[in-house]
Amino acid sequence: MAQPLEMHEDRLLPSEPGRRAVARALYAQVKDLPIISPHGHSDPAWYADNIAFADPSRLLIIPDHYLLRMLYSQGVALERLGVPRRDHGPAEEDPRRIWRLFAEHYHLFRGTPSRLWLDYALYHLFGVRQRLAPDTAEAIYDQISDCLARPEFRVRELFRRFNIEVLATTDPPLSDLEAHRRIAAGDWPGRVLPTFRPDPVVDPEAPGFPENLARLGRLTGQDTGRWPGYLKALAERRQFFVRMGATATDHGHPSARTCDLAAADCQRLLDGALAGGLHPEEAEAFRGQMLMEMAKMSLEDGLVMQLHPGSWRNHNLLLYQRFGPDMGADIPTPTNYVQDLKPLLDRLGNEPRLTLILFTLDESAYSRELAPLAGHYPILRLGPAWWFFDSPQGMLRHRRSMIETAGFYNTVGFNDDTRAFASIPARHDLSRRLDCAYLSELVCDHRLAEDEAAELAVDLAYNLAKRAYRL
Amino acid sequence: MAQPLEMHEDRLLPSEPGRRAVARALYAQVKDLPIISPHGHSDPAWYADNIAFADPSRLLIIPDHYLLRMLYSQGVALERLGVPRRDHGPAEEDPRRIWRLFAEHYHLFRGTPSRLWLDYALYHLFGVRQRLAPDTAEAIYDQISDCLARPEFRVRELFRRFNIEVLATTDPPLSDLEAHRRIAAGDWPGRVLPTFRPDPVVDPEAPGFPENLARLGRLTGQDTGRWPGYLKALAERRQFFVRMGATATDHGHPSARTCDLAAADCQRLLDGALAGGLHPEEAEAFRGQMLMEMAKMSLEDGLVMQLHPGSWRNHNLLLYQRFGPDMGADIPTPTNYVQDLKPLLDRLGNEPRLTLILFTLDESAYSRELAPLAGHYPILRLGPAWWFFDSPQGMLRHRRSMIETAGFYNTVGFNDDTRAFASIPARHDLSRRLDCAYLSELVCDHRLAEDEAAELAVDLAYNLAKRAYRL
Amino acid sequence: MAQPLEMHEDRLLPSEPGRRAVARALYAQVKDLPIISPHGHSDPAWYADNIAFADPSRLLIIPDHYLLRMLYSQGVALERLGVPRRDHGPAEEDPRRIWRLFAEHYHLFRGTPSRLWLDYALYHLFGVRQRLAPDTAEAIYDQISDCLARPEFRVRELFRRFNIEVLATTDPPLSDLEAHRRIAAGDWPGRVLPTFRPDPVVDPEAPGFPENLARLGRLTGQDTGRWPGYLKALAERRQFFVRMGATATDHGHPSARTCDLAAADCQRLLDGALAGGLHPEEAEAFRGQMLMEMAKMSLEDGLVMQLHPGSWRNHNLLLYQRFGPDMGADIPTPTNYVQDLKPLLDRLGNEPRLTLILFTLDESAYSRELAPLAGHYPILRLGPAWWFFDSPQGMLRHRRSMIETAGFYNTVGFNDDTRAFASIPARHDLSRRLDCAYLSELVCDHRLAEDEAAELAVDLAYNLAKRAYRL
Repeated sequence: MAQPLEMHEDRLLPSEPGRRAVARALYAQVKDLPIISPHGHSDPAWYADNIAFADPSRLLIIPDHYLLRMLYSQGVALERLGVPRRDHGPAEEDPRRIWRLFAEHYHLFRGTPSRLWLDYALYHLFGVRQRLAPDTAEAIYDQISDCLARPEFRVRELFRRFNIEVLATTDPPLSDLEAHRRIAAGDWPGRVLPTFRPDPVVDPEAPGFPENLARLGRLTGQDTGRWPGYLKALAERRQFFVRMGATATDHGHPSARTCDLAAADCQRLLDGALAGGLHPEEAEAFRGQMLMEMAKMSLEDGLVMQLHPGSWRNHNLLLYQRFGPDMGADIPTPTNYVQDLKPLLDRLGNEPRLTLILFTLDESAYSRELAPLAGHYPILRLGPAWWFFDSPQGMLRHRRSMIETAGFYNTVGFNDDTRAFASIPARHDLSRRLDCAYLSELVCDHRLAEDEAAELAVDLAYNLAKRAYRL
Repeated sequence: MAQPLEMHEDRLLPSEPGRRAVARALYAQVKDLPIISPHGHSDPAWYADNIAFADPSRLLIIPDHYLLRMLYSQGVALERLGVPRRDHGPAEEDPRRIWRLFAEHYHLFRGTPSRLWLDYALYHLFGVRQRLAPDTAEAIYDQISDCLARPEFRVRELFRRFNIEVLATTDPPLSDLEAHRRIAAGDWPGRVLPTFRPDPVVDPEAPGFPENLARLGRLTGQDTGRWPGYLKALAERRQFFVRMGATATDHGHPSARTCDLAAADCQRLLDGALAGGLHPEEAEAFRGQMLMEMAKMSLEDGLVMQLHPGSWRNHNLLLYQRFGPDMGADIPTPTNYVQDLKPLLDRLGNEPRLTLILFTLDESAYSRELAPLAGHYPILRLGPAWWFFDSPQGMLRHRRSMIETAGFYNTVGFNDDTRAFASIPARHDLSRRLDCAYLSELVCDHRLAEDEAAELAVDLAYNLAKRAYRL
Repeated sequence: MAQPLEMHEDRLLPSEPGRRAVARALYAQVKDLPIISPHGHSDPAWYADNIAFADPSRLLIIPDHYLLRMLYSQGVALERLGVPRRDHGPAEEDPRRIWRLFAEHYHLFRGTPSRLWLDYALYHLFGVRQRLAPDTAEAIYDQISDCLARPEFRVRELFRRFNIEVLATTDPPLSDLEAHRRIAAGDWPGRVLPTFRPDPVVDPEAPGFPENLARLGRLTGQDTGRWPGYLKALAERRQFFVRMGATATDHGHPSARTCDLAAADCQRLLDGALAGGLHPEEAEAFRGQMLMEMAKMSLEDGLVMQLHPGSWRNHNLLLYQRFGPDMGADIPTPTNYVQDLKPLLDRLGNEPRLTLILFTLDESAYSRELAPLAGHYPILRLGPAWWFFDSPQGMLRHRRSMIETAGFYNTVGFNDDTRAFASIPARHDLSRRLDCAYLSELVCDHRLAEDEAAELAVDLAYNLAKRAYRL
């Protein structure tokens, strides 16, 4: 029998009445603030073309690696979820059947943030009032389909309705940013900015690295086979991104390793990288040197750096061969920041004009490494709880483990970090609720006055992100 | 002055009245469910012989390494607790004196799960109504002694009274399972199953490894000095366990290391192991290869695998020399799953018919490794909070760190993992209470509806264990 | 507009009314107990000379590396805070300007323990009733200045007013303990004891190690270039400290490494250390051997050992060159106790007369290593939450992660560990409140009876420290 879908106004706020009252008052002040989304993975072409989303499954299920991973872990083949195979083998194409399959497994998401994000979107975006389940799947599919066909569900209108003040995409370094160009040239008032993500041209283990550098050379007229020309070409590309509105770079390295090598060593590594002959340790050194070079360039061009280390990409060999990347098979690894960042901090850690935002998938580094580092070095800031930890308990651990050492003002507010457009308001709302819950803890412990908590709630929801990302 | 011993009906449920009401309602639905005990260390001969327990100290103190470790840490010599010395030196033999000594130190267990388990058994099993202390020790000793002399305190009657639906023991690989055979042959309706624990014949550092393999060869008629014969012999032993009712294997390796070696390398390692000449790194590779072989055999015979890695056994050299193993001197070590399991996952991680249940003594792996792995790979499931973490806060950390990423359905319910028979109901009750407490948190956060929480409470207490262990 | 400064009587106690009532009752029993301060860094000369503190900034800001690190992380130059440069470059000298600068940045400390400690001192010690902020900075400065000029704010009077029963300083091994001698010779009843901190003469990487050993030789008449003479000299120095009232040693090594080397190897390492030619790994072995030697000497002279490992001192190269040590640039590193302490535990772990108190900056070791070790080895005790974790959430994590395995009686109460004299009562009060909050959790979970919690509250606040440190 169908169960109602409810969105309790106090969800995620503390249940103890005294704390709940404080948290409620704080949340009331931030729930309607505009969304600052300084880091995410939506496609800029959506905004340039003002697309309509195709169907419920292509909007909500197929692109969401959080959903794919969980379903796959319980024996649901990705083909049945409509994920295309690299060998063009058969995969489900009927979005309605995919939706039904998903509904049959919706109970798997109990207790996960995916459930919270989806229910929020179903309720607030599409007006669904019944819980998704096998017996409600069809009706809900129809209801969403009806919505998606209407003009007010095109992406620009949703962007406005979501109250997004500014949103950054993540873009490849060789991109011509054509979609961004079209957005800028048009009269749509939405603010969508690119982010410079140079992994394909700074990681010698990236697919096609030599070809990427050849293209980089052609694009910039620099000799990317020589260290100085290579750096110059990168600096030019960054300048192009800056001209197109970028305020940040993003770096997805396997570790936080940084290096400070002599120029001759750099050239030698570059030669090896172009010849495809670097040992893993040399590749690691190359990436480490490139983080240093990126930091030096940031000193010049003002781009804020983001470092997202510690993900073992495509850990499941078979799945990668069959479906490619981003299928929910990326697994965290232990990450050391104190040792690995030392070369960069030795050279640039005290630069007042540089900002390096650190993320982690290794929560043991929160209190041992990240908070002490960010609570000392002027260039360091702490990114929000990332990926698996972008969840209620994950956020609480992040706050409770780091604020006491690093304070609030070495943090940078929230990132939704999503390619699931429909989930953006849900994610920001969840973050705001959890921050108010955390602040209410400090208020009710009498560690913080209510006027200070109110100021911090707005800082965490809005000001800190704008400031840290120079938006 | 004697203090009362009380068992509050709401113990371990949240103290905030709103959450307590929800937790109470959930607990009411699970408290009387039958016990599924798929992993433990009780002696099958107890059930075959329907033994009576000797005295309070031999039942409750001497076999419990949790108690021994704590008392030893505070200067109580193990001899005084009746633990026999290997050199047959003097040790206390009077159970009443051991009991008195224990009572004098009972305050050491404040805040520990041992205290909860013992108080539960004293109260519910033996009807004790005064707190154990020096001034009540004698009377309580007498009260328990009286009970143990009565027929309704023989082990089969307790098994029935505890409402155990099925219980698995842990058995050596060369065992003839004679006790299990007798249980099966009799007319007692209790269901007691063996578990195949092959450490003595797959770990080249196990005491007497070459002799064990010789015996394995004799038992199976295989040439265990040759790799194919060795594997065949193991497969036969597993088949024997399957015929005797086993549904699972258990592996107690020092790390989670797995290997996928060529046959020639396997033979070379086996030769070295039989000659007693493996370097530690080779021994580690041997064990890693054997986990792979066990997994391949599980694909054939359907036995569920359990991996309990990361305990440094017998860390206290002197104590081991004097008293032998299992004296409370096993200490956890950092454990890496993402790297170590890769060879096995590469080969078998996507097999729908295989189940590998992971345990850990390294809580930093919960959110960084175990939940992301289990939330993706179809073969992986998460064992309950193990050993030191089989405790209220330990269970909460386990749930809070993993459910958001792995969901509930990649977990396997509770294991009591005990050789302390009298503590079985206490341990299951504690687990059920803590799960209801955790679920009430999700309900009161409005992350989960009450009907879903009710379903999950039963799953966590009963269904998940039956399903995961194929019982 | 100025905001009031309030000290709520229930601060840091749980907000749920049921738990709060229990916590309040417990706290009432401990709040006025005398302070036992067995580990700290105040200057014994203060007490010998009964000094008056110079001004608010020199009392509360300049010596506090917690404050310096946070201000520096947000771009405040240390020169502007009055920290003297090694090159005698300009630094602010006007304490009032430093105070104003600090007040402008006081919001940075929201949510940190520094804020709690400072507010406590402002309120209780100096009678301040307005929150520190730019508009109240002047008035508060004046108010504190007035106090500091009065005789009842001299250090001995504060010592009495703080109700300190005994306080230990931390002293260099070559010190003549002249201040301690003067305290002992006078008629002041305050009990101030030295602690033997031998790092400068047992760490071959300490600045001036060869010179330190030469001085050690001269002081003791021993040949410190020969291993036996070196050990004898150290034993003599320890004896001197014992005669002056010391009950403990303290060891600030980069790791927990211990060694058990042959005498010839020891001499070889000593030769290398004196020649300044040890490799880092040899230096590590030297320090590891010296922990072993110190433990052996403790068996003789009864000094309790404290091990504070895992801090990467002076991680910020530039800052160290400009200002020297203790500027808030010490960063934790991963620390392994199970492997590193094995040699010492193998030799001395079962000695009933030895006590080794362990601290950590790596919280992942709490449940994985420290609690299981201390819950077994008779010589081991757990120090309180240290440094960055000397904070409300840090203390709760410490208790919740360790008590269930190690129990309360393997812990040693609280250390204030401070050179900020004015913060001593604030730190002890915070610790007592948090322990009562934790105990109330156990009581309301019905894991502990109220009479037991009351006993434990006094133990944690008073008895355990006295007993562990043999005071």
